[in-house]
Amino acid sequence: MVDVDIALAEIVGKEHVLTGDAIGEDYTHDEALGAEGVTPAYVIRPSTSDEVVAIVKLANENRIPLTARGSGTGLSGAAVPRENGILISFERMNSILEIDTENHVAIVQPGVTLHELEARTAEVGMVYPVYPGELSASLGGNVATNAGGMRAIKYGVTRHHVLGLTAVLGTGETITTGGRFVKASTGYDLTQLIIGSEGTLAIVTEAILKLQPRLPLTNTVLAPFSDLDAVTRAVPKIVGSGVGPLILEYIDGMTMGAITHTNDLQLGIPDEIRESAQAYLVIMLENRSQERLDEDVEQVGAQLGELGALDVYVLPGPSARRLIDAREKAFFTAKAAGADDIIDTVLPRAALPEFFAKVTEIAQANGTFVVGCGHAGDGNVHLAVFQKDAEIRSRVLHGLFAAGMELGGAISGEHGIGHEKKAHFLELTDPVKIDLMRRIKQAFDPNDVLNPGVLF
Amino acid sequence: MVDVDIALAEIVGKEHVLTGDAIGEDYTHDEALGAEGVTPAYVIRPSTSDEVVAIVKLANENRIPLTARGSGTGLSGAAVPRENGILISFERMNSILEIDTENHVAIVQPGVTLHELEARTAEVGMVYPVYPGELSASLGGNVATNAGGMRAIKYGVTRHHVLGLTAVLGTGETITTGGRFVKASTGYDLTQLIIGSEGTLAIVTEAILKLQPRLPLTNTVLAPFSDLDAVTRAVPKIVGSGVGPLILEYIDGMTMGAITHTNDLQLGIPDEIRESAQAYLVIMLENRSQERLDEDVEQVGAQLGELGALDVYVLPGPSARRLIDAREKAFFTAKAAGADDIIDTVLPRAALPEFFAKVTEIAQANGTFVVGCGHAGDGNVHLAVFQKDAEIRSRVLHGLFAAGMELGGAISGEHGIGHEKKAHFLELTDPVKIDLMRRIKQAFDPNDVLNPGVLF
Repeated sequence: MVDVDIALAEIVGKEHVLTGDAIGEDYTHDEALGAEGVTPAYVIRPSTSDEVVAIVKLANENRIPLTARGSGTGLSGAAVPRENGILISFERMNSILEIDTENHVAIVQPGVTLHELEARTAEVGMVYPVYPGELSASLGGNVATNAGGMRAIKYGVTRHHVLGLTAVLGTGETITTGGRFVKASTGYDLTQLIIGSEGTLAIVTEAILKLQPRLPLTNTVLAPFSDLDAVTRAVPKIVGSGVGPLILEYIDGMTMGAITHTNDLQLGIPDEIRESAQAYLVIMLENRSQERLDEDVEQVGAQLGELGALDVYVLPGPSARRLIDAREKAFFTAKAAGADDIIDTVLPRAALPEFFAKVTEIAQANGTFVVGCGHAGDGNVHLAVFQKDAEIRSRVLHGLFAAGMELGGAISGEHGIGHEKKAHFLELTDPVKIDLMRRIKQAFDPNDVLNPGVLF
Repeated sequence: MVDVDIALAEIVGKEHVLTGDAIGEDYTHDEALGAEGVTPAYVIRPSTSDEVVAIVKLANENRIPLTARGSGTGLSGAAVPRENGILISFERMNSILEIDTENHVAIVQPGVTLHELEARTAEVGMVYPVYPGELSASLGGNVATNAGGMRAIKYGVTRHHVLGLTAVLGTGETITTGGRFVKASTGYDLTQLIIGSEGTLAIVTEAILKLQPRLPLTNTVLAPFSDLDAVTRAVPKIVGSGVGPLILEYIDGMTMGAITHTNDLQLGIPDEIRESAQAYLVIMLENRSQERLDEDVEQVGAQLGELGALDVYVLPGPSARRLIDAREKAFFTAKAAGADDIIDTVLPRAALPEFFAKVTEIAQANGTFVVGCGHAGDGNVHLAVFQKDAEIRSRVLHGLFAAGMELGGAISGEHGIGHEKKAHFLELTDPVKIDLMRRIKQAFDPNDVLNPGVLF
């Protein structure tokens, strides 16, 4: 039996292996509301792919659970380590290795944050357009959860922007997948399989990301509606117009009240409109040309009027930015207000009215307060659930997930399953699919060392 | 031992099981140039998913190879059946089950053709924007090969437009994946894994396809260049401009000569320009607004001039359509001209000049004639190889694939591996990846009944 302490220190140097009290509290959890922190046996901070390979081999030979961690901003507990396990923190593997302006790709290590990538791509007039709420999130974590965010309505999610990976299997073998191209039909798409697998199939040590030309101009329209149904019915019409919004968010009246209050946001909406508004649509448009942008804003404004908006406000740049920021921080606003859980069910966008009726029914039947906002264009609903009693809360969550799935949806649109939603995932998913996924897991990680306890 | 004849007839009715001489020649091959036709033991024509399940169960229990076939327009031999096997032809499962204008999806059976889907979506102002050359191709086949085509530069490939599947595993178990939404983080993405797996993982019986708003206006620009290098160097610049072309194709001088001659195409290019043109770029733009389209055409035209085009022609609608059609049919032109194989290597688009230098070197060293055209914006090069000697041809192909892979590419961008490129695929791919793919295959199809001999 190898001495794990010594072996790990040999791989990365003693100063990059933390144990016991040297392990800070931050390493024990992510941002999932329900998750209990867990202190792992080791935190290790590799600086190269080769070091990661050596760590995985050691873990595989000694059957030690391995959990990868980027910035720890996840919302499903997938970065919470095992008590007897090793947490690989990618804080030192945080380099943008290349911005390739000919092929329009960035090559990044897993610890690079969205914020850093945004700054570097801006310098060359490009953009990595996936925009989950939290810019301190790491690209490794984004790949692991298939992160989404507000701009998915135009650009898609992480899955649509990762062209290739270098990844270490549970056996310690390294594979490279994909490349600096957007298409291939050359065997199974291992890139796509690893994306969204929450660290259970492989540990990503490098990613090739697709960049887009950065369009310089944006404008934002805010439209209050007297009820949530009208909002959700408006969404397919706006998408169908071909105007191609960058952002198409709904915010319910309660959530809008909370985020404007918390962020001291003045949007210039008259009191009488605010009082009768039950829900809002926020639509951001982008363009290369001011003239086209203005035309598009006018077109969307007119369409919103026809679709029953109480009024239409074109927000000045700073107000728009503050509203979008506040919306991004809705999670923290809900958390501060005492929310006990946040879910992000996804469903066919046309099923949103029916789903919201179900939400109200389930909330009322269980004496639970449920409010939300979300990516209306994608049918991805973020709901904050206020219910202290764990048993009732679990029943409410189960009911909400089941209602979404009955309408053709899935449990999570972008946060993932992790540890937090595993019970619901296993209960509500066809066992044939679960068994198939377990066999796929086995193909990548025969000894179940990669993030055991997540998903299954 | 069950009597397979009787069992198959019980599943679909006697008239839909063909054997012996009743099996037409069409069923024995696809369009792959090198493929030998193979007559299977049975051709079976199911009409429902349940019948497909019963067929797969029977095949699995009796270890009979099963090959699925749509329209048979594939170029890699993946629809060529096994001699002792069953060919499932989807000619009767050819219904568009729904066009959902609220969620912007189409639900189709595998035998639906692109042509039928194009007609039906046009009626409601939507479009399924994946556009491989052959509109008689089936959606089932498109899913199996991850078909691409000219519009991938703007819209991506099949992979980016399939939101969910109903699919039968090798065990006869049915799974449904994804749904009428564009994003999910709920376990492994089985949809993406099945797409492009060439019938080796599961048999697709239904697909949910993402539709886009149909933009009514297009315009096409043709630009001759004095050398191929200038063309490939221009491509990243045009993509980077943000103009968002619908099509961005290159056609080498030899191929342009052949397709204009074969199709009796008059493009109005003066002789002196045609004589000095070694390669052409074809750029199609689309828009909702005539004014914007005209502006974009002007912008691209000016940019092409700066990038060294000998001249820039805006093609009238009918000429443009005929040129694009002729380009789509370049495969058949090459075939008629006696091409012995066609490949579709994909590589980083900025590596195209270096790749073309390699192509010339390999062709000359082997006394072989190689010409081409392709999806320049995607780095996807279609090369027609004229070499009768099978051994030399194999050496040339191997050299071309190896050269592409050394530059960071992959063997096939959109045609797939099938039987035809399997030897090169297995020789040139990292054995760790091949072994992993074999284990994944095992997870879906433990008895290796689904399209055995394809990929592996």
